[in-house]
Amino acid sequence: MTPGRFITLEGGEGAGKTTAAEQVSAWLEQHGRQVVRTREPGGTAAAEEVRRILLDPATGELEPMTELLLMFAARAENLAQIIRPALNAGQDVLCDRFTDASRAYQGGGRRLGIQMVDRLAAIVHPDLEPDLTLLLDVPVTVGLERVRQRGGPADRFERSRADFLERMRAAYLARARMEPERIVLIDASQSLPAVRASIFRALEARLQ
Amino acid sequence: MTPGRFITLEGGEGAGKTTAAEQVSAWLEQHGRQVVRTREPGGTAAAEEVRRILLDPATGELEPMTELLLMFAARAENLAQIIRPALNAGQDVLCDRFTDASRAYQGGGRRLGIQMVDRLAAIVHPDLEPDLTLLLDVPVTVGLERVRQRGGPADRFERSRADFLERMRAAYLARARMEPERIVLIDASQSLPAVRASIFRALEARLQ
Ligand SMILES: Nc1ncnc2c1ncn2[C@@H]1O[C@H](COP(=O)(O)OP(=O)(O)O)[C@@H](O)[C@H]1O
Ligand SMILES: Nc1ncnc2c1ncn2[C@@H]1O[C@H](COP(=O)(O)OP(=O)(O)O)[C@@H](O)[C@H]1O
Ligand SMILES: [Mg+2]
Ligand SMILES: [Mg+2]
Repeated sequence: MTPGRFITLEGGEGAGKTTAAEQVSAWLEQHGRQVVRTREPGGTAAAEEVRRILLDPATGELEPMTELLLMFAARAENLAQIIRPALNAGQDVLCDRFTDASRAYQGGGRRLGIQMVDRLAAIVHPDLEPDLTLLLDVPVTVGLERVRQRGGPADRFERSRADFLERMRAAYLARARMEPERIVLIDASQSLPAVRASIFRALEARLQ
Repeated sequence: MTPGRFITLEGGEGAGKTTAAEQVSAWLEQHGRQVVRTREPGGTAAAEEVRRILLDPATGELEPMTELLLMFAARAENLAQIIRPALNAGQDVLCDRFTDASRAYQGGGRRLGIQMVDRLAAIVHPDLEPDLTLLLDVPVTVGLERVRQRGGPADRFERSRADFLERMRAAYLARARMEPERIVLIDASQSLPAVRASIFRALEARLQ
């Protein structure tokens, strides 16, 4: 256990993770905590370069294993440069996606299997899992419609085939059933205020 | 075993790998083989982008684990797109650096340990090691002087501290002692014609 708390936001495309990050961050600060925010893939200059390769549609198809290793490469950097130093200094860390996303996207979506992702997790962060994970769950089509409404060019994952995104969602839900102590499932198909209320209830129940 | 033969060139900065690649390739073709040449990190468009991050001095320091994962990410792509298809089609593959370089640079130089590199090798290519590896060994200072003479800007590894490069060289030599069946040690501090003669002798002994 580190002095700070490690909180991650998970979910599919357009589920509302980035929106939720604002709310979680505000809640933590209201409760007197210092909060460090980061995201994956990314968070440091080198990790953001890896993010560009991963998200740029121009990259085209990657081997599933390549995708997984790039995700963990960015993660190793984010962990060493941002996440661990903040936790050790007693700050809370709020991360938009973490290893559960690799389990869902590369393990489930790309069919590498959860065990393969866990082998890499055991190499890169054998001693650390999030203290709390909020899994924002929406039907794939609802999430994609939100992404469309948000505008801007769709990234490599947002352009994925529906069957890939359905496997991703199913893997997230399976993981939440496996780890109910850590992962709180939020019905993110609700209205924005209703989702926010669910998030605050989860924070009050788990972090107070 | 694949129908083609997988041959790798290893050694420190300026040892003469790229020079040797021409000679090995010519020898194989004279012996009636089709040869596919590739290099690491790199070989495919995405892997070359990863190479840029790894070699660009502007990247600055990376976590050793990040460096290792990026090397294997590029490797996974090179294996799936270039190396395995060629070997399976009966072509010989000649690769300028492979996993022995990760053992030497990240395992030895960056002190991650050989075991850590072997864990990733067991994930990314559990079924494949080179059939033959030519390890071109030169004293670190001789190699760096060749790089300087060659001209052009020095890359991230060529700018490394001497102690890093000495650990890298020692790890290469230790690996060669462990696997004498696979790895042929070439004294690359000799003159160009003498190195070429050593390379041809090794090819004749091992591949005919
Ligand atoms: N509960 C919600 N109902 C309707 N729209 C939402 C909801 N949550 C988020 N959005 C909108 O959907 C889009 C995607 O949200 P975002 O937080 O960027 O998702 P993510 O980071 O999970 O991809 C944004 O335009 C956001 O305003
Ligand atoms: N045996 C040698 N003696 C002197 N110079 C050499 C020898 N082998 C290679 N060189 C020169 O040293 C430089 C580095 O060689 P290169 O093949 O690019 O090494 P590497 O690919 O291992 O970094 C080149 O300019 C090359 O012509
Ligand atoms: Mg987002
Ligand atoms: Mg070279």
